[in-house]
Amino acid sequence: MNEVIETILAHRSIRKFKDKPLSEDTITTLVQCAQAASTSSYQQVCTIIGVEDREKKEKLAELAGNQSYVADNGYFFVFCMDYNRHMIAADMKETDIKETIESTEAFIVGAVDAALAAQNLSVAAESLGIGIVYIGGLRNRLKEVSDLLDCPEYVLPLFGVAVGYPDAEPGIKPRLPLPAVFHRDSYQTKEETANLLEKYEIETAKYYSERTGGKRTEGWVTQITASMASPKRTYMKDFVRSKGLNKS
Amino acid sequence: MNEVIETILAHRSIRKFKDKPLSEDTITTLVQCAQAASTSSYQQVCTIIGVEDREKKEKLAELAGNQSYVADNGYFFVFCMDYNRHMIAADMKETDIKETIESTEAFIVGAVDAALAAQNLSVAAESLGIGIVYIGGLRNRLKEVSDLLDCPEYVLPLFGVAVGYPDAEPGIKPRLPLPAVFHRDSYQTKEETANLLEKYEIETAKYYSERTGGKRTEGWVTQITASMASPKRTYMKDFVRSKGLNKS
Repeated sequence: MNEVIETILAHRSIRKFKDKPLSEDTITTLVQCAQAASTSSYQQVCTIIGVEDREKKEKLAELAGNQSYVADNGYFFVFCMDYNRHMIAADMKETDIKETIESTEAFIVGAVDAALAAQNLSVAAESLGIGIVYIGGLRNRLKEVSDLLDCPEYVLPLFGVAVGYPDAEPGIKPRLPLPAVFHRDSYQTKEETANLLEKYEIETAKYYSERTGGKRTEGWVTQITASMASPKRTYMKDFVRSKGLNKS
Repeated sequence: MNEVIETILAHRSIRKFKDKPLSEDTITTLVQCAQAASTSSYQQVCTIIGVEDREKKEKLAELAGNQSYVADNGYFFVFCMDYNRHMIAADMKETDIKETIESTEAFIVGAVDAALAAQNLSVAAESLGIGIVYIGGLRNRLKEVSDLLDCPEYVLPLFGVAVGYPDAEPGIKPRLPLPAVFHRDSYQTKEETANLLEKYEIETAKYYSERTGGKRTEGWVTQITASMASPKRTYMKDFVRSKGLNKS
């Protein structure tokens, strides 16, 4: 155990921040950490937009489903998959790289590159006593988010990360049993998975029950199944294609 | 600056490992760190397959384009987007969640969840003096990788992470100028991007020239444009759909 592993294992999402902005130095350090992450074939497909303008932050909070901590925090980062840069580079070299960028493969690379950068930023922030929460809610109304931040074609905002000095100390929800997420040499059998899920259902039901004084008694299986019963953000396929991504 | 940020900023990919396996304790710690990462709506869409069998490792090395360090390392992890678990959970609750899982939105969530977990594992490894390299080459022949690891429908191997005690000390390639990847309040103009890329082209050309005694003089713009001129892994769209993912 060391400071790094302690920081990582202590993670919990923070949704209430003190009214204390991050310093410029801290912002720069966090972005440098994001940039230091691995990137597929040196492509560096991630761009980060720091949102500072109060009106824009409030608009983003609204678009994300009225999540106040999108506006009220120490700083707000939006992580984008970005192939616009490569298109400009290709223009400089009079080369056509559109087919590459429009591919499903490039879409995977872009999502992974952006997430690796974001997680570096998050761990670095937490090491400084700064809390973080990922904001997938930006994808509720992604066209409006994209327009608000003037994102051109080939740039897709993926999620936000709100950061700031914590003003809450939430618990850590139990993760899936380790054998459910870590298999050896082969993907586990359906039976193994089902057994582990049954065990996890009981564990998480107990966790919620204890924390709500018995008001909430649903475990992970019940909760996740219910939340996934209706598809979300069904406009996504068309929107992503309109950005020139995930087409072929 | 602290130990965490120092670890993150010191990252470089390691492609030559000592013949020293990771201990069971270390493997467990790394997987726990992976699990501690944020996950979209508590869905936990990532499964990690540890590959230990020598024959399987050698086969993976071949499939990844004869990358020897896929076989020769301290341990090898394959990170998968995994909705099979949710399908089993839904079966237990007699609920239909297929439409959710097949969506582009779910595909984004899965890629991001897996990458966040992988980056936690990577940073934790590096904090223990263990080197890492991401293996996107697994996507060269993903059906064969998937079959080798018995991945069922709704499970998509995304990339590998080879880890081990470093037997090389490579340099750190210069990243894009910070203002190119960090914008404020709005995505930057095309002119700004182009100017930064021109500057970066010169910087990276100089870096390569110095390291190769003048043999290699192409900068990032030249290199990336050439490498993206022909699309790669064009089978990906169909393969991903055959897994029941990224369909709608």
